[in-house]
Amino acid sequence: MADTPTIDTVRALCERYSNWGRWGDDDEKGTLNLVTSEHVVRASSLIRRGTAISMALPYDDAGPQTGAIGRFNPIHLMIRDGADVIAGSSVRDFYGGVDRNFRGTDDLIIMPLQSGTQWDALGHVVFEDKIYNGYGAEWVSSKGALKNSVKQASDGMVGRGVLLDIPRALGVDWLEPGHAIDGDQLQRAADQVGVDVGPGDFVFVRTGAMAMARANGTWGDYAGGDAPGLGLGSVEWIAERDIAAVAADTWGLEVRPNETPDVFQPLHIVFIVHMGLWLGEIFDLDPLADDCAGDGVYEFMFCGPPLPFTRAVGSPLNPMAIK
Amino acid sequence: MADTPTIDTVRALCERYSNWGRWGDDDEKGTLNLVTSEHVVRASSLIRRGTAISMALPYDDAGPQTGAIGRFNPIHLMIRDGADVIAGSSVRDFYGGVDRNFRGTDDLIIMPLQSGTQWDALGHVVFEDKIYNGYGAEWVSSKGALKNSVKQASDGMVGRGVLLDIPRALGVDWLEPGHAIDGDQLQRAADQVGVDVGPGDFVFVRTGAMAMARANGTWGDYAGGDAPGLGLGSVEWIAERDIAAVAADTWGLEVRPNETPDVFQPLHIVFIVHMGLWLGEIFDLDPLADDCAGDGVYEFMFCGPPLPFTRAVGSPLNPMAIK
Amino acid sequence: MADTPTIDTVRALCERYSNWGRWGDDDEKGTLNLVTSEHVVRASSLIRRGTAISMALPYDDAGPQTGAIGRFNPIHLMIRDGADVIAGSSVRDFYGGVDRNFRGTDDLIIMPLQSGTQWDALGHVVFEDKIYNGYGAEWVSSKGALKNSVKQASDGMVGRGVLLDIPRALGVDWLEPGHAIDGDQLQRAADQVGVDVGPGDFVFVRTGAMAMARANGTWGDYAGGDAPGLGLGSVEWIAERDIAAVAADTWGLEVRPNETPDVFQPLHIVFIVHMGLWLGEIFDLDPLADDCAGDGVYEFMFCGPPLPFTRAVGSPLNPMAIK
Amino acid sequence: MADTPTIDTVRALCERYSNWGRWGDDDEKGTLNLVTSEHVVRASSLIRRGTAISMALPYDDAGPQTGAIGRFNPIHLMIRDGADVIAGSSVRDFYGGVDRNFRGTDDLIIMPLQSGTQWDALGHVVFEDKIYNGYGAEWVSSKGALKNSVKQASDGMVGRGVLLDIPRALGVDWLEPGHAIDGDQLQRAADQVGVDVGPGDFVFVRTGAMAMARANGTWGDYAGGDAPGLGLGSVEWIAERDIAAVAADTWGLEVRPNETPDVFQPLHIVFIVHMGLWLGEIFDLDPLADDCAGDGVYEFMFCGPPLPFTRAVGSPLNPMAIK
Repeated sequence: MADTPTIDTVRALCERYSNWGRWGDDDEKGTLNLVTSEHVVRASSLIRRGTAISMALPYDDAGPQTGAIGRFNPIHLMIRDGADVIAGSSVRDFYGGVDRNFRGTDDLIIMPLQSGTQWDALGHVVFEDKIYNGYGAEWVSSKGALKNSVKQASDGMVGRGVLLDIPRALGVDWLEPGHAIDGDQLQRAADQVGVDVGPGDFVFVRTGAMAMARANGTWGDYAGGDAPGLGLGSVEWIAERDIAAVAADTWGLEVRPNETPDVFQPLHIVFIVHMGLWLGEIFDLDPLADDCAGDGVYEFMFCGPPLPFTRAVGSPLNPMAIK
Repeated sequence: MADTPTIDTVRALCERYSNWGRWGDDDEKGTLNLVTSEHVVRASSLIRRGTAISMALPYDDAGPQTGAIGRFNPIHLMIRDGADVIAGSSVRDFYGGVDRNFRGTDDLIIMPLQSGTQWDALGHVVFEDKIYNGYGAEWVSSKGALKNSVKQASDGMVGRGVLLDIPRALGVDWLEPGHAIDGDQLQRAADQVGVDVGPGDFVFVRTGAMAMARANGTWGDYAGGDAPGLGLGSVEWIAERDIAAVAADTWGLEVRPNETPDVFQPLHIVFIVHMGLWLGEIFDLDPLADDCAGDGVYEFMFCGPPLPFTRAVGSPLNPMAIK
Repeated sequence: MADTPTIDTVRALCERYSNWGRWGDDDEKGTLNLVTSEHVVRASSLIRRGTAISMALPYDDAGPQTGAIGRFNPIHLMIRDGADVIAGSSVRDFYGGVDRNFRGTDDLIIMPLQSGTQWDALGHVVFEDKIYNGYGAEWVSSKGALKNSVKQASDGMVGRGVLLDIPRALGVDWLEPGHAIDGDQLQRAADQVGVDVGPGDFVFVRTGAMAMARANGTWGDYAGGDAPGLGLGSVEWIAERDIAAVAADTWGLEVRPNETPDVFQPLHIVFIVHMGLWLGEIFDLDPLADDCAGDGVYEFMFCGPPLPFTRAVGSPLNPMAIK
Repeated sequence: MADTPTIDTVRALCERYSNWGRWGDDDEKGTLNLVTSEHVVRASSLIRRGTAISMALPYDDAGPQTGAIGRFNPIHLMIRDGADVIAGSSVRDFYGGVDRNFRGTDDLIIMPLQSGTQWDALGHVVFEDKIYNGYGAEWVSSKGALKNSVKQASDGMVGRGVLLDIPRALGVDWLEPGHAIDGDQLQRAADQVGVDVGPGDFVFVRTGAMAMARANGTWGDYAGGDAPGLGLGSVEWIAERDIAAVAADTWGLEVRPNETPDVFQPLHIVFIVHMGLWLGEIFDLDPLADDCAGDGVYEFMFCGPPLPFTRAVGSPLNPMAIK
């Protein structure tokens, strides 16, 4: 790949690895079709210690978002709270003046569905006016995603998980922004810890970007800025393994700056639009990485469905690695 | 219990079954302390067919909420969509006029955290100015729950699940509003399908209320109106089994009208404030019930963590039964 | 007009009264161009008693919206409140533990911009892929209205106001749903109280629909249901007078059911898209009508600018009649 | 005032200028009681040129807020837009598949009520557990301000306005952060342009802070940082003139850092809590200042009611100076 990759490179990858029609013309599940009940049963055998580890970053105003491209950190507000109780106004204000010896608290969230740990739905990216499986982009209107919504995954995100800790494989604390992860590095990380990656697997690629932000004490330009991540050289490795999903500890999964000056987030086009591959972002893989480094076991049962938001193109979740 | 139960009945139950201090004076996890790693490992052996069943009701504007007590159905809005792409204005409107061959869609949710399938946090109910473990209610202010927030459960909602399908046990399609489920009925439902309920279990009590709403073609007063549910006569059975959590397919878990004319939702006081028991509501148990009726197996691995909303008193989730 | 009016009737009206190009090809202000400084000066002479009367319905959860077409009543939430102060947790929760003898309260609103008393922006209606002055509808994308936004009116809604109280003119408490107001009725209402309507005027047409809802003690189907309002027979009268804006006390200004079975809200098409006429809805004209009936004066100074929401297609406001 | 002022200074000012009880024990309007109908009639004579000038900063994501203390810039989202029309999916997505030749657009705002140009309600500040007129702070709970809400002003913000352009009076482009405006400077600005300030007036104090932000091309720490503004030395001048309201072009009206190290925003305590004086903030006074400098006339008719948000402690508005 001596020449600078371009939109034509991306188009070629799309054509080569397209899954359009593979699971029927009306498919909206994409690579989740690759997860079989046998995979789920086998994954259950990976639960040996009885430990559940969350990969979710807390959803709050300390998150990485800056407001750019409409993504802000979750806004949490109380509808009723305990201070109202202490102030003595709960019954008057909320219970119509009748005291039935009960005081409740309630709250509310306002959040972009891709503001924290998230799955991208297959309707999240449009390329040349199409979304996954060839549906026209008009299926994702102001009404939401009538095709390829995140709800398609609500039963399906259970199976075998594998952590590929790239900085650990390379002997560094974290990958530097601009580091493009290729297939060789993914394979090396798998080999070093003795795991295979195969059909129906959920693959978690750690870059260390979140660890770097923690070390720096600031998110910096974590959201949308330069970052390590998957590069064009990872496509073949990922596509040929028929995995169910891939998630990373970065804002956008891909290396930034993108290797294609004329294409923003080229792998999103190949993976989401053409392969129907589910992508996860802003997964906090540090606790899991610590645990795996501790016991040397990099595979686990994974349970991480999105919330079934009807017509949504993304969803927060609390992804669990169970070992 | 010949006399009408009152606030004193509730106080007596609180005193008898209180877990304040049981797991330390600074505990905020309550009954999730009862889930051990052995429970999780044993639960994994319940995955036999490799089937994952969601218990989440879709989050959308067709949900049961009416706006009462500040709870409305989720409001979903698009930040950018595919129609913008088709209209040809995406690059101009969202990409600064520079076309990098990429088009994304994004969306946003506004929702009360208890508007759909949900966990109640231990800070959700205040009784006599206190929340679980004796913290003062002022810990739940406009800032949110600085104690007993839902995030306390973010690693912990994994273990053995048991479905108690009460209408099936009683030979009816659904329990009528006002039907108070007691310990005998819970035990009968368990006995009929050959399951025990014990420490650390996640217990799902099906009343059929959601099936009734589906049969009627309308939610009616599902949200906040009369309903079947757990009654005072269930407290001993539940408390003595040391379960981790209990969830139902109703708006409020408890029988309505409440058996205590002077106390609204008395079990919320006993369970949440004094026992530190995690309660789940608006769980859609119908698909799971169908599956269990089909294979006769009413136990399963459960994975259903809340989203780690910092300082929240409730959380939506996608609870999974894996069999 | 013996035949049932159709889309062709609407097209003919659009053609006859179109203002496209009248104020330049790049105009976005429409009929507000008709308000001159002389009008404003003359209007000031109508302030005789020094009384200011609001025509805004309060913005709160008691409003008329039902959630239909995405319009719900405003959701008001506190960010910080006085109960936090009384509970003694303000300093800890909001002021970093440092007490500087100050306690503030703050709040927040979530509202569709057309959920209450409102101006429609000229970008609010699309007809045959165009908005006012011939701009393509793609100028109103997910990014908002880059043309014809409500901000165009932020300096311009000041001038002479005239109340046309149709039920009073007709000797009834309110017009019945389905009552189509025509030019003769508008003229009769003006004549009875001795006012002329002319260029640059702000005309407020009272139907009594809000009074009816008040008498009934319920909004009923005020939002989106059958209603009295302007009919096709009012177009000539309104268009030929070159007024600046027209507002009514109904949800949608027009008679419902619409007179055109094949066209929803036909006057919105004629008025907004082709005439560039500013329309106001859900104005509470009852206090003003009472005042005018009291002193017999139906003209006044009007000040009612929208809030300058950038790229918005509507805006709440507090319209004032000053007499 | 040789000694550093403290909370005792503030308490003394509160005691000296308190209006508690002045307009009755149940008053919630405060200094708006000072506006008479005669004032309104006289103000109308100030309309000579027929020019209306908005003092509102546009409400959008380019505003000054940073998210601190829960105040973020308005979030504007489309519910339906013109791109849906162009994409051809409007009828399918929003009109139930039935084409009635109409296409509408709708939108929504999420905003802290004090995120832009705003009035503070009299319930916005609590001092020693009390709000204006001696009501307990528990009247402002999670339910909102049941006393002293912004709706109290919905009929009353009409009268004579006076612009005091302090930087112009002092011969500078803008006042520097930390500049405390005192009574002498206010009087000098009035004298230079030949206006008196008296009972019932609406006084607009320009500091030039917004002009500075414009010159700098960035808001910097406009929201909450150091700023010019009213100092303790302005209290006597303002209190003794019995004005109706005072507004400025800064985030918080007062000089920052505050002159009282132990009290944050001391004038808010004196003005709002004890005098019941209405305060306006983030008013864009630059266009008005330009106009006044042009014609040498610094008085005008003012119309600037808040939106009647029920139970709110603040409100955006579009304040108009009419000359």
